[in-house]
Amino acid sequence: MMKLLGVLPFARELLMKAVTEGDVVIDATAGKGNDTLFLSKLVSNTGKVYSFDIQEAAITATRKKLAENNQDSNVQLIHDGHEKLLNYLDQDDYENIAGAIFNLGYLPGSDKTVVTTPETTIKAIEHIIKHLKVEGILVLVVYHGHAEGKVEKDALIPFIRALPQEHFHVLEYQFTNQINNPPFIIAIEKRG
Amino acid sequence: MMKLLGVLPFARELLMKAVTEGDVVIDATAGKGNDTLFLSKLVSNTGKVYSFDIQEAAITATRKKLAENNQDSNVQLIHDGHEKLLNYLDQDDYENIAGAIFNLGYLPGSDKTVVTTPETTIKAIEHIIKHLKVEGILVLVVYHGHAEGKVEKDALIPFIRALPQEHFHVLEYQFTNQINNPPFIIAIEKRG
Repeated sequence: MMKLLGVLPFARELLMKAVTEGDVVIDATAGKGNDTLFLSKLVSNTGKVYSFDIQEAAITATRKKLAENNQDSNVQLIHDGHEKLLNYLDQDDYENIAGAIFNLGYLPGSDKTVVTTPETTIKAIEHIIKHLKVEGILVLVVYHGHAEGKVEKDALIPFIRALPQEHFHVLEYQFTNQINNPPFIIAIEKRG
Repeated sequence: MMKLLGVLPFARELLMKAVTEGDVVIDATAGKGNDTLFLSKLVSNTGKVYSFDIQEAAITATRKKLAENNQDSNVQLIHDGHEKLLNYLDQDDYENIAGAIFNLGYLPGSDKTVVTTPETTIKAIEHIIKHLKVEGILVLVVYHGHAEGKVEKDALIPFIRALPQEHFHVLEYQFTNQINNPPFIIAIEKRG
């Protein structure tokens, strides 16, 4: 047992604070579909989830998970890179995103050569935070145990720390006495 | 408004998770008495608060604040350095501390030459975490805007990051896109 929230429960807690019924949200890395399912329930049938993945296997797994949970009516599955967000985002949803999540790294149990990359990740973050609504939150779960993950982290940190404080709160949440480079959280909240 | 918890509310939230009625707790830096009052209410009359400060003005202010709130019966005010904890801690309270808080820096509105120092801070932390109970949490609010604060932070970070992960969870919680060196949180939880 543990009183401090672990990284994954903390990510969920932040999304629950920012997102409610009827909201528009983004899962930038569908993966096995766990976060897409979670977000789909959170926004309910009156809301909308855009769920991206560049891997067909992830889209298939997520579609299956949603169907098994009868939770697919409010999800748009997009087999494309999250940096192409603006090709898919309805104009009605501009500056109206309540929450978004990235799991940065590779799809667990899949091809480890297919990883998120700093250029596309940062481009996607830029698009999403521009279209967050006030008090909307983007959550990044940063896995950096693999070599490309360290490169991505090293590009990401200066970018998020340079976001203007008059427009965004940027929080880092990290367990720092662990030896195996455990994932950590970056959260970006849009200010009013 | 803000959905992400600010540093001071987050510190309070951690103490509320770890501490309940009847517990033994420590305010390592009484200051104006705000945290001592908060902890005194949290542990109630069946609990105990040890509250340290090296400055007479802080002890006086804390005593006054507790009396005004009829909340002084469970507080032991100690006009001495927190590194001398073992001179004061009852043997019954050994390995039974549920929560502790430090506000590292100088007493606001007071003599800015009287600051916490790395050697005594680290010695006090060592004593306290030895006597935390399982799932007990020590919270450090690290002010590092002043020159000595930066020195203290630079000594503290390697110390807390080297705490053995089989015995402690060490969490850092920090807003990282702000220009004025705002305070951040270090939380240390004892593992079972």
